[in-house]
Amino acid sequence: MCDLSCFSVLITGANRGLGLEFVRQLLQLSKPPQMLFATCRNPSKAQELQKLKAQHSNVQILSLDVESIISIQEASVFVKDQLKGLGLNLLINNAGNAIANTIYSESEESMHLLYQIHVVGNLKMSQIFLPLLKEAAQRGPQDSLSCNRAAIINISSSAGSITEVLGWEYGHCLSYRCSKAALNMLTRCQALALKEEGILCTALHPGWVQTDMGNSSAFVTTLKKEESVQGMLRVLSTLSEEHSGGFYSWEGKALSW
Amino acid sequence: MCDLSCFSVLITGANRGLGLEFVRQLLQLSKPPQMLFATCRNPSKAQELQKLKAQHSNVQILSLDVESIISIQEASVFVKDQLKGLGLNLLINNAGNAIANTIYSESEESMHLLYQIHVVGNLKMSQIFLPLLKEAAQRGPQDSLSCNRAAIINISSSAGSITEVLGWEYGHCLSYRCSKAALNMLTRCQALALKEEGILCTALHPGWVQTDMGNSSAFVTTLKKEESVQGMLRVLSTLSEEHSGGFYSWEGKALSW
Repeated sequence: MCDLSCFSVLITGANRGLGLEFVRQLLQLSKPPQMLFATCRNPSKAQELQKLKAQHSNVQILSLDVESIISIQEASVFVKDQLKGLGLNLLINNAGNAIANTIYSESEESMHLLYQIHVVGNLKMSQIFLPLLKEAAQRGPQDSLSCNRAAIINISSSAGSITEVLGWEYGHCLSYRCSKAALNMLTRCQALALKEEGILCTALHPGWVQTDMGNSSAFVTTLKKEESVQGMLRVLSTLSEEHSGGFYSWEGKALSW
Repeated sequence: MCDLSCFSVLITGANRGLGLEFVRQLLQLSKPPQMLFATCRNPSKAQELQKLKAQHSNVQILSLDVESIISIQEASVFVKDQLKGLGLNLLINNAGNAIANTIYSESEESMHLLYQIHVVGNLKMSQIFLPLLKEAAQRGPQDSLSCNRAAIINISSSAGSITEVLGWEYGHCLSYRCSKAALNMLTRCQALALKEEGILCTALHPGWVQTDMGNSSAFVTTLKKEESVQGMLRVLSTLSEEHSGGFYSWEGKALSW
């Protein structure tokens, strides 16, 4: 059971893997979002997403590349126009990538690329969409934080836990781990700053899932993306003030930084 | 008392603040390094360092900019030539900077700049100087890790502790915090990978010190750079295998990630 009930949701990296599965399952909720902005770099190539849009009038597909501020700004102008002052309830920063380098071979380029996608891009998403999140927060119940009111959810990874360094024996993936640790710091800072705005900010670990991106490193379990997203949506529906600034698994377990 | 006794030490950002103080105090040890490579971006402007060199024949000043791989490589060629096969015992990645943005104003440029200086530059330093660190490790006692044998010391900050987010009330400084959290992850990964090479890797928090860089944020204490470096050198002299991959204050206190 999941009683998530947001008027509006925006998700990045919605063309495949967990992002696409989020869109699918959000549409199957008992109260699906009335405005669901599914974003990806190349909408024309996102065939599965296009099929979902053809079946659901509440889905809009937008071009959005978290590596480009202009792209984020253009998307925000469109979304603002669509929302007509009702605000954005839930921003899911899901776009991600992984590069399988070792500590000896890791390059400047891959370090900065994953930092851009996982940290700087997420920061810019939150800065640029902040006015819309604040609109939603102001319209919601004033005394609590929740995903139904206004929230930024950053999809992180237990590989970014400095305490656990999970999966080390399977790959160093420094660019991935360093960027996810930094994303966890970003989430914690966002939570501290945006609490007074009524915006919940939480980092989620989706589990080690069988996706195009996760295949090579999906070693720990054989978790399916359907189970992962089902779990994460259940977690999202339960998040409140005490979880803002925290780091939780798809099963709702609190994780170490 | 500090019984640190390294044949060779290299430190970045040695022209001012903590880096310059490290050079001063290393020269005052009962057994100072026989080869002390003090590096900075502009040696010709490093007047204090030049004075120390004039007084101590074991000091060499090198141009090294952690933002430039070519600069790191050129420095490593010079250092290798000077060391004549004896290896580098202690690499202190001290170069750093801070930018006082808020979560609302933080820019792409400052995020990537501090990531380059604190994380990518440190990674490249360790990759490029690794053969020299391994030479030192192979010449040292084979059964333990120590700064006297071979070590990478990354100067981090408690502001990079995701658990503590110390000093939040004085400034968001996202680019600083995210890069230092990522540096802590880098340190932990380096420790895991380089243990079998006999190289100790530890992150240190120098305290909130009165320096040119730290002045605006040196709010928590009025710690002087002399005390900070005295404490850090004492900590360095006590580090062993159990501390590799850890995060310690200038007083030797274990810090949370």
